[in-house]
Amino acid sequence: MSTDAAVPGYSDDKTAVLARLRRVEGQVRGLTRMVEQDIYCIDVLTQVSATTRALEAVALKLLDEHLTHCVVDAARQGGPEADLKIREASDAIARLVKA
Amino acid sequence: MSTDAAVPGYSDDKTAVLARLRRVEGQVRGLTRMVEQDIYCIDVLTQVSATTRALEAVALKLLDEHLTHCVVDAARQGGPEADLKIREASDAIARLVKA
Amino acid sequence: MSTDAAVPGYSDDKTAVLARLRRVEGQVRGLTRMVEQDIYCIDVLTQVSATTRALEAVALKLLDEHLTHCVVDAARQGGPEADLKIREASDAIARLVKA
Amino acid sequence: MSTDAAVPGYSDDKTAVLARLRRVEGQVRGLTRMVEQDIYCIDVLTQVSATTRALEAVALKLLDEHLTHCVVDAARQGGPEADLKIREASDAIARLVKA
Repeated sequence: MSTDAAVPGYSDDKTAVLARLRRVEGQVRGLTRMVEQDIYCIDVLTQVSATTRALEAVALKLLDEHLTHCVVDAARQGGPEADLKIREASDAIARLVKA
Repeated sequence: MSTDAAVPGYSDDKTAVLARLRRVEGQVRGLTRMVEQDIYCIDVLTQVSATTRALEAVALKLLDEHLTHCVVDAARQGGPEADLKIREASDAIARLVKA
Repeated sequence: MSTDAAVPGYSDDKTAVLARLRRVEGQVRGLTRMVEQDIYCIDVLTQVSATTRALEAVALKLLDEHLTHCVVDAARQGGPEADLKIREASDAIARLVKA
Repeated sequence: MSTDAAVPGYSDDKTAVLARLRRVEGQVRGLTRMVEQDIYCIDVLTQVSATTRALEAVALKLLDEHLTHCVVDAARQGGPEADLKIREASDAIARLVKA
């Protein structure tokens, strides 16, 4: 009867996304320390690439949830709202691919 | 009454995708000529980047059509088929983002 | 006599990189707040893409410095050290492009 | 005494790059056939991602040669030419990362 019932598992997903974001924040702080300590550029770059991949994983997780919940719900309701949700999702995917 | 009726606009989309792919093929042949003629590396690289972006645009177009047609149809029908389509789409997006 | 003399301008570059990393850290914290407050997925994704681009800009800045300082110095000295530096730089670029 | 002597292995590299580009051209023609034959979108997308990765590999190969030959040579000569080559290489890397 609650709205949660309509989005099963959302809390779990949210907890997982927040845990990933906290790790990314830690990775960025690690990068700051590496630069402050004049760690060799190439080693810093390796960690920047790892951090970028971690952020992309967050994006893919959010997008997957968005498709699973919002897009599927909108598709079932149909009408202009469904078209809008698909358009938004496609635009977000384009931004990710080009980021 | 034809299957085309179930996928309105698909013919137009297909024509557009094929036109883009022919352009990409022309770009790749252009790259071959540039290398054969010992064109300066950096100028070849600029064209490689343009070709990669053109291929990404094909991918985003195909993905948008897939969401608009297959995923929306599957979502309306519901059941495991809808879950499978969403899973496939998410995996394809992940491959694109990491490509 | 100091090592700084050997890498002119490094302090400015370092300050700039650290300022960028602090901004990225702020962006990641902003993402955490957005998810905690259940901000609409698509809006969170837009900010994830912006954060990814900011991280890429850090990487490109670090790589540019690396080429300008370490690779140029090694090339002048020649020998296996120069080959190693070029190999390391190429590998770092490959990781960035695939990240 | 020929200029080729100054860039040992360049012919091998060129042959390898041309072979890769021919494979990419074949992959793009394969994509056209897949779309003409109405192959399932997701399968086409998988091949687009593979083609994009193959193009990126060409770019990374060209860039590696550029660093090994042009940038190292320019660094040894020094002066504004060296700065220009580094600038060009950094800009090409940025285009690749953002492509």
